[in-house]
Amino acid sequence: MKRVFLRNRIVVIFLTVFMTGGFCFAQSPSTVTEDFKPSSVNQPGKDYPQVNSEGRVRVQISAPGANKVQLDIGAVKYDLAKDEKGFWIGESAPQDEGFHYYQLWVDGAAVPDPGSLYFYGASRWGSGIEIPAKDQDFYALKNVPHGQVIELPYFSKSNNSMRRCFIYTPPGYDKDARKRYPVLYLQHGGGENETGWSNQGHANLIMDNLIAGNNAKSIIIVMDNGTWNMARPPAGGCPTGEWPPKGWADGFTKTLLEDIIPMIDTNYRTLADQHHRAMAGLSMGGMQTRVITLAYPEVFSYVGIFSGGSISTEDLAAAPGFKEKVKLVFVSYGSRELENPRAGFGGNPKENQDKLKDAGLNTHFYVSPQTAHEWQSWRRSLNEFAPLLFK
Amino acid sequence: MKRVFLRNRIVVIFLTVFMTGGFCFAQSPSTVTEDFKPSSVNQPGKDYPQVNSEGRVRVQISAPGANKVQLDIGAVKYDLAKDEKGFWIGESAPQDEGFHYYQLWVDGAAVPDPGSLYFYGASRWGSGIEIPAKDQDFYALKNVPHGQVIELPYFSKSNNSMRRCFIYTPPGYDKDARKRYPVLYLQHGGGENETGWSNQGHANLIMDNLIAGNNAKSIIIVMDNGTWNMARPPAGGCPTGEWPPKGWADGFTKTLLEDIIPMIDTNYRTLADQHHRAMAGLSMGGMQTRVITLAYPEVFSYVGIFSGGSISTEDLAAAPGFKEKVKLVFVSYGSRELENPRAGFGGNPKENQDKLKDAGLNTHFYVSPQTAHEWQSWRRSLNEFAPLLFK
Repeated sequence: MKRVFLRNRIVVIFLTVFMTGGFCFAQSPSTVTEDFKPSSVNQPGKDYPQVNSEGRVRVQISAPGANKVQLDIGAVKYDLAKDEKGFWIGESAPQDEGFHYYQLWVDGAAVPDPGSLYFYGASRWGSGIEIPAKDQDFYALKNVPHGQVIELPYFSKSNNSMRRCFIYTPPGYDKDARKRYPVLYLQHGGGENETGWSNQGHANLIMDNLIAGNNAKSIIIVMDNGTWNMARPPAGGCPTGEWPPKGWADGFTKTLLEDIIPMIDTNYRTLADQHHRAMAGLSMGGMQTRVITLAYPEVFSYVGIFSGGSISTEDLAAAPGFKEKVKLVFVSYGSRELENPRAGFGGNPKENQDKLKDAGLNTHFYVSPQTAHEWQSWRRSLNEFAPLLFK
Repeated sequence: MKRVFLRNRIVVIFLTVFMTGGFCFAQSPSTVTEDFKPSSVNQPGKDYPQVNSEGRVRVQISAPGANKVQLDIGAVKYDLAKDEKGFWIGESAPQDEGFHYYQLWVDGAAVPDPGSLYFYGASRWGSGIEIPAKDQDFYALKNVPHGQVIELPYFSKSNNSMRRCFIYTPPGYDKDARKRYPVLYLQHGGGENETGWSNQGHANLIMDNLIAGNNAKSIIIVMDNGTWNMARPPAGGCPTGEWPPKGWADGFTKTLLEDIIPMIDTNYRTLADQHHRAMAGLSMGGMQTRVITLAYPEVFSYVGIFSGGSISTEDLAAAPGFKEKVKLVFVSYGSRELENPRAGFGGNPKENQDKLKDAGLNTHFYVSPQTAHEWQSWRRSLNEFAPLLFK
């Protein structure tokens, strides 16, 4: 188990650097293609931020009294320049296709850009931007039958408090009251919350489009919050020097098994058995998926780990029943993560998947082209994973 | 009809002053009660903004390089003071109980407070704060059966575009597939959108609590966007000097009657007739409710106008069928609105209601104590209106 913690420790360090924007330098792009357009996730009527065909982000903000304003995106801060009317403007280096969190710094104050919509990530509601992707059609809002995204408050006995989850029900859910559906429990990453998979992940649109194209079965997706329980110290305290501490996922495991799954099976028309239940997650949510499905293979049939590690043959040996009961182990990464020597998370995920296949498991390994530890990798991962479910 | 436009013009002017923070002066409260607590709508883990028992708002932001930072709330800007660590801190005068939009100014940049949750109002996503109210129990999140808030994308033929609405379904909606429900179409105000009634209005929690106490019938509430259509110029152009122009509500009327209501009646288990259909709205949404229900009394039985004008006997005379078909005209205001000579909107709403009652209509007039043109008035209005519906 030591190896597991070490592996997780690397993930946490990686996420910390990724999310806090640890690097700081100015950059003046020498040549910039002047075909900027407003981002698709701007607030209504707002012209900025903008994106050009190179994937550069240009921001503009009125701050006539400011001394220094910066754009902070992809862990780099870019100095903006002030015009004669008091507007600060400037652009970033090219960004990967897909969704990115960012913020502005105005004389040392880190603030959201007033022009963008806001998303929960890096443990805050903040600005996001969308770099148009060549494959963006799979998560586009189209005139196809749409499922619902339901916000539901519920009481959690194991936490003695109210919680909130989001539930995707597929098109037609309310039409045939006799039909029951399989369920995917889908978790966000560290510093994110239960809004991530629908707001920036477009899980609902990905499913709507897959279902409209007859490329996936109609399923229910449950998106709850895995963060609230993680910080709870495990019984007996944290062993010195171990991070995450032993039992780091126990709180969410208990909430998921004792509260969330029974609540969903009671209130929605689910097929409430192991054969029709999947779990997946990104980054920290992938780590939770890994730990929980290894410990409870009698609960879940399908396992999806997106940028969150993989399952080794040692893990398999220590998880009785997993090999016999689990029908799919799906592991994915962004290609840029695999180029990063820190990103393997203590083992080569492709090699681990190959060994699981040799051991007789049904495995699938996916690499998102030209993306890093970011939402475009996870949107694509869901788009690859969902068609494999409940066959 | 001239009087109607004049009345509406006054509303628009009033809203403009209200929303843009038109006044600007500094204030240093002489004595401040030091019992500040984090606002209930702070982002997770954020200590600021805070509120004290007087209803003052205290904000804090790190901006070590800034020259001037202000808190902008209730149309007043308050200068903050900088401490030795680069934090700016300061507080407002006492605010009314309930919800308020606000923003910060950092060296001339108007930005959301990074500590608060964000809400759509004043035509932007921005900061909000909650001043604890003596009657806050009626919209509190409690361990009672909860309805769902559903986000649904749908295609609008009349606009040839995708739209989004939020739909509240009451507790137990998915339990009995034979049961059908009456529907309330509930509209936001100017500069707000389809998220307002659930995010800052707590319409879902108000209904959950009313239903749990057996104080209102279980209903479906539909919250769509009335803004998108308002700006569309009416056929034939705008007569000079008239604002809102003749036909200002035609776009939303068409969308509501041709797209929204049929879509809801097709996809949800509604009682799809006039007897079981209500419309209400706040401010601009109340003005829309007034215009639409006067023109289509065969569609709606119950009418709620919150801080959005009232119906005169002249209106009644010009609306054939309204008197015979409509079962309730509910009009409400915040008490501070009625103290403001501009707030009557061209007629005394209480007198208008009395005259309607004399004319034989079932009327209800409600005044929210010690509140202005703000969400606490509208939360209370819904809490008074809903128990009167579908008796």
